[in-house]
Amino acid sequence: MKKGQRKNLLDHGHIIYVDHMGTDTDIVDAARVSYRGVGSSTDKALIRYLMRNKHTSPFEMCELKVIIKCPIFVARQWIRHRTASLNEVSGRYSQLPDDFFLPSVISHQATDNKQGRSIPLNEGAQNDVKRLMREHQKDSYDLYEDMLSGGVAKETARNVLTLDVYTEFVWKIDLHNLMHFLKLRCDPHAQYEIRVFAAELKNLAWQLWPDAMEAFEFYHVDGITLSRAEKIIVATALRHCEGSGQTLTDMRDLLGEQISEREWKEFVTKLDLSDIIET
Amino acid sequence: MKKGQRKNLLDHGHIIYVDHMGTDTDIVDAARVSYRGVGSSTDKALIRYLMRNKHTSPFEMCELKVIIKCPIFVARQWIRHRTASLNEVSGRYSQLPDDFFLPSVISHQATDNKQGRSIPLNEGAQNDVKRLMREHQKDSYDLYEDMLSGGVAKETARNVLTLDVYTEFVWKIDLHNLMHFLKLRCDPHAQYEIRVFAAELKNLAWQLWPDAMEAFEFYHVDGITLSRAEKIIVATALRHCEGSGQTLTDMRDLLGEQISEREWKEFVTKLDLSDIIET
Amino acid sequence: MKKGQRKNLLDHGHIIYVDHMGTDTDIVDAARVSYRGVGSSTDKALIRYLMRNKHTSPFEMCELKVIIKCPIFVARQWIRHRTASLNEVSGRYSQLPDDFFLPSVISHQATDNKQGRSIPLNEGAQNDVKRLMREHQKDSYDLYEDMLSGGVAKETARNVLTLDVYTEFVWKIDLHNLMHFLKLRCDPHAQYEIRVFAAELKNLAWQLWPDAMEAFEFYHVDGITLSRAEKIIVATALRHCEGSGQTLTDMRDLLGEQISEREWKEFVTKLDLSDIIET
Amino acid sequence: MKKGQRKNLLDHGHIIYVDHMGTDTDIVDAARVSYRGVGSSTDKALIRYLMRNKHTSPFEMCELKVIIKCPIFVARQWIRHRTASLNEVSGRYSQLPDDFFLPSVISHQATDNKQGRSIPLNEGAQNDVKRLMREHQKDSYDLYEDMLSGGVAKETARNVLTLDVYTEFVWKIDLHNLMHFLKLRCDPHAQYEIRVFAAELKNLAWQLWPDAMEAFEFYHVDGITLSRAEKIIVATALRHCEGSGQTLTDMRDLLGEQISEREWKEFVTKLDLSDIIET
Repeated sequence: MKKGQRKNLLDHGHIIYVDHMGTDTDIVDAARVSYRGVGSSTDKALIRYLMRNKHTSPFEMCELKVIIKCPIFVARQWIRHRTASLNEVSGRYSQLPDDFFLPSVISHQATDNKQGRSIPLNEGAQNDVKRLMREHQKDSYDLYEDMLSGGVAKETARNVLTLDVYTEFVWKIDLHNLMHFLKLRCDPHAQYEIRVFAAELKNLAWQLWPDAMEAFEFYHVDGITLSRAEKIIVATALRHCEGSGQTLTDMRDLLGEQISEREWKEFVTKLDLSDIIET
Repeated sequence: MKKGQRKNLLDHGHIIYVDHMGTDTDIVDAARVSYRGVGSSTDKALIRYLMRNKHTSPFEMCELKVIIKCPIFVARQWIRHRTASLNEVSGRYSQLPDDFFLPSVISHQATDNKQGRSIPLNEGAQNDVKRLMREHQKDSYDLYEDMLSGGVAKETARNVLTLDVYTEFVWKIDLHNLMHFLKLRCDPHAQYEIRVFAAELKNLAWQLWPDAMEAFEFYHVDGITLSRAEKIIVATALRHCEGSGQTLTDMRDLLGEQISEREWKEFVTKLDLSDIIET
Repeated sequence: MKKGQRKNLLDHGHIIYVDHMGTDTDIVDAARVSYRGVGSSTDKALIRYLMRNKHTSPFEMCELKVIIKCPIFVARQWIRHRTASLNEVSGRYSQLPDDFFLPSVISHQATDNKQGRSIPLNEGAQNDVKRLMREHQKDSYDLYEDMLSGGVAKETARNVLTLDVYTEFVWKIDLHNLMHFLKLRCDPHAQYEIRVFAAELKNLAWQLWPDAMEAFEFYHVDGITLSRAEKIIVATALRHCEGSGQTLTDMRDLLGEQISEREWKEFVTKLDLSDIIET
Repeated sequence: MKKGQRKNLLDHGHIIYVDHMGTDTDIVDAARVSYRGVGSSTDKALIRYLMRNKHTSPFEMCELKVIIKCPIFVARQWIRHRTASLNEVSGRYSQLPDDFFLPSVISHQATDNKQGRSIPLNEGAQNDVKRLMREHQKDSYDLYEDMLSGGVAKETARNVLTLDVYTEFVWKIDLHNLMHFLKLRCDPHAQYEIRVFAAELKNLAWQLWPDAMEAFEFYHVDGITLSRAEKIIVATALRHCEGSGQTLTDMRDLLGEQISEREWKEFVTKLDLSDIIET
């Protein structure tokens, strides 16, 4: 994606990549101000170290600026991320365009996951729902236009529009906070429509900061957290393996360079296995 | 207003006063940590000094927590204030109630103020608009309920609701940031519906922090700012008065205790009048 | 600890518990606004759910206000936590008292941990170092007083004081951000002197929000995170156990109520074990 | 100043301009997303409008990144600005260099301004103070080095250094928050040493965002605020002038293009003069 380029998303939405500041090198440079002259890590290893240990401030040194066009119900989730800058089109000043989001698939309420959706309705039912939604959107926009042409204040008229009408905003966020956004909004529990935008932002972030994003996914997206109790189960299992032929060192060897000497030590330490595993 | 008390606002909205932390005394105590042992100001004079000089951090030491029920278009303006904590009802988890805001007065678009409204429509036109809005709200909620009973996921169904549907949230903010909110949202340029809520929050703030609020209104709400050019006009006029019988000292005397000795000196200094006014 | 009570720490420091807002119940109440009418969890279970899933906003609804007296080198680490309110004594306004921190133990530089300390120096060496430090502190304060009595501006004179001179500040922070502070500053990698303060704040937080703190320690302090690679090792080990007599269900049973039915499902899911473990 | 260029300040300090994001045009572009299609202002006029009316969010769309080397007592004032990103050299990891700030002029404590300084000491007294300060700095660094060579942990040894030792940090801030920093730290009440840095940052900001900085100085730095009482005095004086030959329109004419038609209306309105001045 090039500066100024637009990527269309959903039926009427888009992301425009406006600008960014900083590269992987700038993250490393900021960190090296703190740890001056200490360590001879490569840039990539240092970024992995920072990410693993949640030294987040160097990642704040990079910025991304994009224009987002998305339905208002998506924007309302988006704006909950407070550590970002935002300028949104105002329906008090300007007439909003006739762009509404119509889902391509209508799905059932999930029963296990109270906030999500499960399998699609049957095709006939989907078509019925879509038709009714589309008609309602048209009625909304017709009433909006009628009120405007009748001289009603824009700030009043716009409130008859539905939550699936599109809005647009400039959004600027630093890389640390962008990663937090991506962690939450690329997650399968996030609503599908915001995930579409988050996925595209993730692509853009990979393009701009490949080392930082690789470390982010390795440690935080694909990693897991274990509670005190879960840690006990895991540690017990690992001890059992060590005593029954399936040694941890063998398991580690299968991972090759995915786990460094230093991280292996950290792993053994955090699972309290240093009495049985030599590092 | 007592803790737990609810004040109804608009047609279906309210503010519930949940909790607060700190009083005027706590503001003063925090400030006195900084200026230890310096000055013999009364509490009230110290609060005025802090407010006048924009020493804002002591005002951050107080907190207010309320529950707000307001239309979504109001909530969208509200949430732009980022330095606050918020938990809002989620339409992904729960069915939203059938509460929509219907304006009691429908007004024309303002022509001078591009974001506001001017005089009301004639009564017949108002009634027509209200009837159409109310019907559209009913259609919205009917479609929403039909979709829910047809098994459609809540997170999809809710998006056919209009921006004037009510939402509810817990909101917690410190006094400094609350004052910033009040400055913007009690202003005549703010949309009428959010001003209704802001006015009630202002009453509550006056009850909890009377000295701080008095100083806030005296210096910031009822005060004005002058640009470099406006300052020149004003200074010129004041000089002219001084030389033509209407002396500034006379004018000051009319204000009595509203302007202290110290503030009078600051006034003369900031208008570069110390060559003609002795302080 | 009661409101207004002071706990002395290090040689001249203290924490004074000034005020707080909210209890465990307020966290739950805020969360229930979002998930209205959904779930029949007990308060404790809901707090554990919020903590486990990093739904952090309800924890922002509680506040703690304390007065801290600590050495400036500790205050400099403290103030890096930006999401808090602070009023510190100003050496430009007031003469700072003659209070310097002298360590009770002088330790060697750690070699493995580049930022920490290892074993103590021998007793003679320790005494030498302490004597020299104390003399230097006295010289600092003497020069400071001489400059002040010579009429030198306070803002200049104070800069001859050393980083181990004590300062004092009011500090207010919400519970979510306090937990982040405690996670970092109770960690063995944090400098000993700030850990002394963090430990005491942790005690206070346990007193005020016992359920929230228990969940915090269970999931975040005593919990661990595993990278993508570490997750593979652990999952492999768990599969091996399951196939070699040491079943996971047995391991789980040892933990009793420490791991709920729901968390057990989450554990099996996050380690991709649902093909071999029935939940 | 070019990217990567260093400007030396005080005796051992500097600012290095590392990077920035955005120009005056980006501010305007962000604002125009909000006020789409409304108004035909020039870019410069729009920036003045935003600044005058404190529409601050478009100014957040620009960023500045610099490296600062300054004494710790300056850094402690600097870091009070929380809405910025920062990576500082850590004395726990690295030996700090032997750089201390020695004032070129030693001044008396101000008596009217409790936080400031007044006239210089006589030359002999200044030289005495400087000599003593310099000796104390040398003693500090000698003790620091002795402790380090005796094997004492860096995190302990560094605390014998004085508050005038230099530190260094990367600092990134958006333009809105930078202006707030400049307003406070270029002010004559700020300590001289931080003003030296703020003045240089102001030059850099003028180079990068000339229209925004001009508007900032016109409305906020050179502008003034009047309290409710001061406003009454000024309004009274202006009325008196209008009735005594010195008309406001004449005064305005002297300012030429410094005050637009629109601002003139705002001026008349905010001073409640619309009954006597036609606009």
